[in-house]
Amino acid sequence: MELKDINSPKDIRGASIQELEALAEEIRTVILQQVSQHGGHLSSSLGTVELAIALHYAYDTPNDILIWDVGHQAYAHKLLTGRYEKFSTLRQSGGISGFPKRSESVYDAFGVGHASTSVSAGLGFAIARDLMQKNNHIVTVIGDGSMTGGMVFEALNNLKQTKKNFTIILNDNKMSISPSVGSLSKYLSKLSVKHNSYLEEFGKFIRSIPEHVGGKLREIMESGKLALENIATPGQFFRDLSIRYFGPFDGHNIKELIETFNDIKELPDVCLIHILTQKGKGYELATTNPAKWHGSDPFHIEDGSIIVEKPRPTLTSIFGKTLLTLAKQDKKIIGISAAMLDGCGLNFLKEDPETADRIFDVGIAEEHAVTFAAGLACEGFTPVVAIYSTFLQRAYDQIIHDVALQNLPVVFILDRAGLVGSDGPTHHGALDLSYLRTIPNMVIMAPSDENEMRNMIYTATQYKNGPIALRYPRAITYTNDIRTEFSELPIGKFRIVRKGKKVLIIGIGFLLAKCLDAAGVLEKKGYEPTIIDARFAKPLDVEAYKELFSKHSVVATVEDNSTTGGFGSAIAEILAEMKNPPRLVRVGLPDSFVEQGEIDELRESLGLSGQSIADKILSNAAT
Amino acid sequence: MELKDINSPKDIRGASIQELEALAEEIRTVILQQVSQHGGHLSSSLGTVELAIALHYAYDTPNDILIWDVGHQAYAHKLLTGRYEKFSTLRQSGGISGFPKRSESVYDAFGVGHASTSVSAGLGFAIARDLMQKNNHIVTVIGDGSMTGGMVFEALNNLKQTKKNFTIILNDNKMSISPSVGSLSKYLSKLSVKHNSYLEEFGKFIRSIPEHVGGKLREIMESGKLALENIATPGQFFRDLSIRYFGPFDGHNIKELIETFNDIKELPDVCLIHILTQKGKGYELATTNPAKWHGSDPFHIEDGSIIVEKPRPTLTSIFGKTLLTLAKQDKKIIGISAAMLDGCGLNFLKEDPETADRIFDVGIAEEHAVTFAAGLACEGFTPVVAIYSTFLQRAYDQIIHDVALQNLPVVFILDRAGLVGSDGPTHHGALDLSYLRTIPNMVIMAPSDENEMRNMIYTATQYKNGPIALRYPRAITYTNDIRTEFSELPIGKFRIVRKGKKVLIIGIGFLLAKCLDAAGVLEKKGYEPTIIDARFAKPLDVEAYKELFSKHSVVATVEDNSTTGGFGSAIAEILAEMKNPPRLVRVGLPDSFVEQGEIDELRESLGLSGQSIADKILSNAAT
Repeated sequence: MELKDINSPKDIRGASIQELEALAEEIRTVILQQVSQHGGHLSSSLGTVELAIALHYAYDTPNDILIWDVGHQAYAHKLLTGRYEKFSTLRQSGGISGFPKRSESVYDAFGVGHASTSVSAGLGFAIARDLMQKNNHIVTVIGDGSMTGGMVFEALNNLKQTKKNFTIILNDNKMSISPSVGSLSKYLSKLSVKHNSYLEEFGKFIRSIPEHVGGKLREIMESGKLALENIATPGQFFRDLSIRYFGPFDGHNIKELIETFNDIKELPDVCLIHILTQKGKGYELATTNPAKWHGSDPFHIEDGSIIVEKPRPTLTSIFGKTLLTLAKQDKKIIGISAAMLDGCGLNFLKEDPETADRIFDVGIAEEHAVTFAAGLACEGFTPVVAIYSTFLQRAYDQIIHDVALQNLPVVFILDRAGLVGSDGPTHHGALDLSYLRTIPNMVIMAPSDENEMRNMIYTATQYKNGPIALRYPRAITYTNDIRTEFSELPIGKFRIVRKGKKVLIIGIGFLLAKCLDAAGVLEKKGYEPTIIDARFAKPLDVEAYKELFSKHSVVATVEDNSTTGGFGSAIAEILAEMKNPPRLVRVGLPDSFVEQGEIDELRESLGLSGQSIADKILSNAAT
Repeated sequence: MELKDINSPKDIRGASIQELEALAEEIRTVILQQVSQHGGHLSSSLGTVELAIALHYAYDTPNDILIWDVGHQAYAHKLLTGRYEKFSTLRQSGGISGFPKRSESVYDAFGVGHASTSVSAGLGFAIARDLMQKNNHIVTVIGDGSMTGGMVFEALNNLKQTKKNFTIILNDNKMSISPSVGSLSKYLSKLSVKHNSYLEEFGKFIRSIPEHVGGKLREIMESGKLALENIATPGQFFRDLSIRYFGPFDGHNIKELIETFNDIKELPDVCLIHILTQKGKGYELATTNPAKWHGSDPFHIEDGSIIVEKPRPTLTSIFGKTLLTLAKQDKKIIGISAAMLDGCGLNFLKEDPETADRIFDVGIAEEHAVTFAAGLACEGFTPVVAIYSTFLQRAYDQIIHDVALQNLPVVFILDRAGLVGSDGPTHHGALDLSYLRTIPNMVIMAPSDENEMRNMIYTATQYKNGPIALRYPRAITYTNDIRTEFSELPIGKFRIVRKGKKVLIIGIGFLLAKCLDAAGVLEKKGYEPTIIDARFAKPLDVEAYKELFSKHSVVATVEDNSTTGGFGSAIAEILAEMKNPPRLVRVGLPDSFVEQGEIDELRESLGLSGQSIADKILSNAAT
């Protein structure tokens, strides 16, 4: 049985365990080849190869509903469900998604990307099944990292609404992207040490005590609703939520997995199957450093070296190193991350003994992260909450209700703002300027280069009047010329890059570079555009803007955020109040979900190039 | 000791239990008097009188940090912390807030209103304490209803980050606003049945078995890390999260509460004290129907009758009855509420045997509610998620990532949109047009009267192309003339109410009435304004709007949403693209948090009256 011959899970259902094990090896090789050549999520998908095989073997997918939480671990699932041919296009423009996606395959029952959604969605499928009086199975696969997200708990608390089979596979690899944190993770670790020897001894003891006494013990236990099983086996935490716990099992043992799934799937219960897997399984470098190999650029399989090293530091590292410098000077600075210490650059502070005890990784728990920061701010600390733009959406209410309403000085650092590339629509940070701008008291900054970024980080930690946010894209720096001094930026003030006339181009963030490109094009046509670095999306210096506007006949705003409600919209609000305002051209991301692709290609296709911006300005200047 | 003499908690710390019990009675009377005269949250606050007294007696507030989750149960706390004199101003314009509020009192350590935030905020205070090497106590009080919110679980999972005392009082009254739901609630109920008799018998049994066997049992238990305590007492769920569980205790026994707090407060642990209270305690009508008496209008204490009955039905009931009619015809309609069945009008469907099994109360779990709905929509159902505007903020990411990105036909019903009155800034629904408008694929409607509202509910349940939202204010209907037929509204199209010239007024939602008032003022000055009922905030019929705009010189938008990013901003986006656009006047809520007060008074003060709107138009028309 070869992978190329598998068009659907039906093709594996007659196979022997030995054949399935061989298939697992082949799948692992294909994943490793693909990710080494094109990049992608390596460790998670290597860890779930046997699981994906066993699930599609034991369950009647797609009639049975299979939902992968987050979905970056679903490469084997994709290979088994008719996407072997297209697998080389994974995460590329026009290719298949790095995550399950409904529009891509009938086997992708629910689209994912953000963590902790699978149980809620699965319960929706389950209740639909119950109401339609069908009998298909619902299976969700969720990692221990995703279990730290509160919405999973909300869902667990509701699972008894279905009276038929609902199975959660808890894929426990001790990691989210960083190692999993928190008490539940510790609890799961305790479960992972099988209590078998203890159980055996306990059972022997029960049998050894005199019949009339032993019987009494059982009776008392029954009467106390405390079944022997509950005392003697792990998983009580889940049982207390009316969930039957099974495990832990070896997540790489296909035979055991299939037998377990077959045993459990006809139980009319909510079941949790705890399996232990190794993140990165089969590629030794990944197993020894699974966080590093969570997502990877193309690399040489032999030694793991990256094929094309980044020529300059990332903005993430600029943030981390800058905050490290500031936190050494100011002991009130606290760093908070939601399972993304490395991804957000807080690793620099975690690894430094001077700052390590002020860095908190709260797990995939953005809501908690923000309100926890609010509490710290109440006591005079300067919490810096570093969360990717797309994930901070999770804490929108907490930013409003717990931070902004109380006007607490919490610093928000939004990495991966704008287009993120191959992770696609679930991960683009296309909305943060729009959603943060709706919030009273909020200050929003976006730097146009790495030195401005450093000054903005400094400004943010100095600002004590309320919440302040800084957003920047997934990018490398422009130069290695990083200055060491800091200067505080005046809140709300833009910077004039170049004075011109008639045409005014306002860039916010790193897209200022595209504005300069556009200016180059326009200059060749005889225009002398004024160029502004907005720096702030909120507040805006309305009077200064109005004065500028009154001197120009066309204004263009350029942002890597949706133009619906974004920075361009803020400028439109100002213009609409003016008498005889200049014409506005809003350049930015569309009011639709942007697909995956190389960031530069996507920008090009969306009109975010110097040439496109210039063209739009020209067509408006002409009419 | 009388309440009027208590200026701070210090004044009760020397008192006898008897005096404290008398004080509790007095407080209860004051609360009942106040709420019966002015309205407010009755049942919750009556249930926590003894708790508030015992907490301020045993703990050194405000040095010790006391955080009330939600905060509608904190009236006794307010009375004990220097706000007796101002208590008659509770929830009124210029008066004290119905919730703890940092700016109001040093005893209100953290502002609340939305549920489930207290443990996260408390952990912020705790880590601040640890880093400052202080030793004060951190106490949070959280109801069993708030425990269904996922962010509490995120916080519980992080509590071991503090190594000093952190105490959670779990105030268990079996209710959120509706009765608490879910497996955790059932688990707590089981705990509430004291296992004393069972424990006693179990202990007797252990002692009765022969020494060498009994010793062996203990040894095995120890070696298995399964302490006798853990088997024989409840609370294992919390212990599995490394939280020490104590209880349950009688939450109305001041002596027992004080002793317990004193016993536990010096433990260097995370402790959860489970207390049982009766919602509405001391007012019999409220104890028998705590949901009805959760929040109340002014009433006669003797018989509970409302002093001024509403002259016409509420919009909430219009929604409930309309959806009931539709759900009887269409078996695919599902209603979902987050602990607010009555508040959202879904009680009509829950009480009808034809629809009852299609109504799901998920608890205070907005994130789950939305993604659960997404799952149902995948299977062809029409889920209707009814959540107050301010609380739907909690599910912003789920609306984007799980619903809109997959373009699933989920209906969102946002009650309490706009100003809500005396609940104040935590509860105003001032941002929904802004935040929903940022989301691709979203349709947003706001009705201008109850018949249009019925048609919009119908339109929403008929619409299968993606998510659709309907928002309306906390209000009663205009007339009793409710039509019975339904008609589907064309998506995105506005309605011309009156054709005029020069001035164009666009109202969205029930504020259309204010537009008509403004028109009246303008007509007296010789103007003939055009009036538009926008109906939709997204999508907009851009071409039709542009054509209208080209025929007018001033455009005013009127909304009960923030003008920052709201409907007016959407219109500004259109205008800014036009050549020689008319001047825009955006009338709506400010980009700041609006305080509590009567809705009409607040509108007046914010310029949302016919006269103010007309004045603004005139000043713009003149320049």
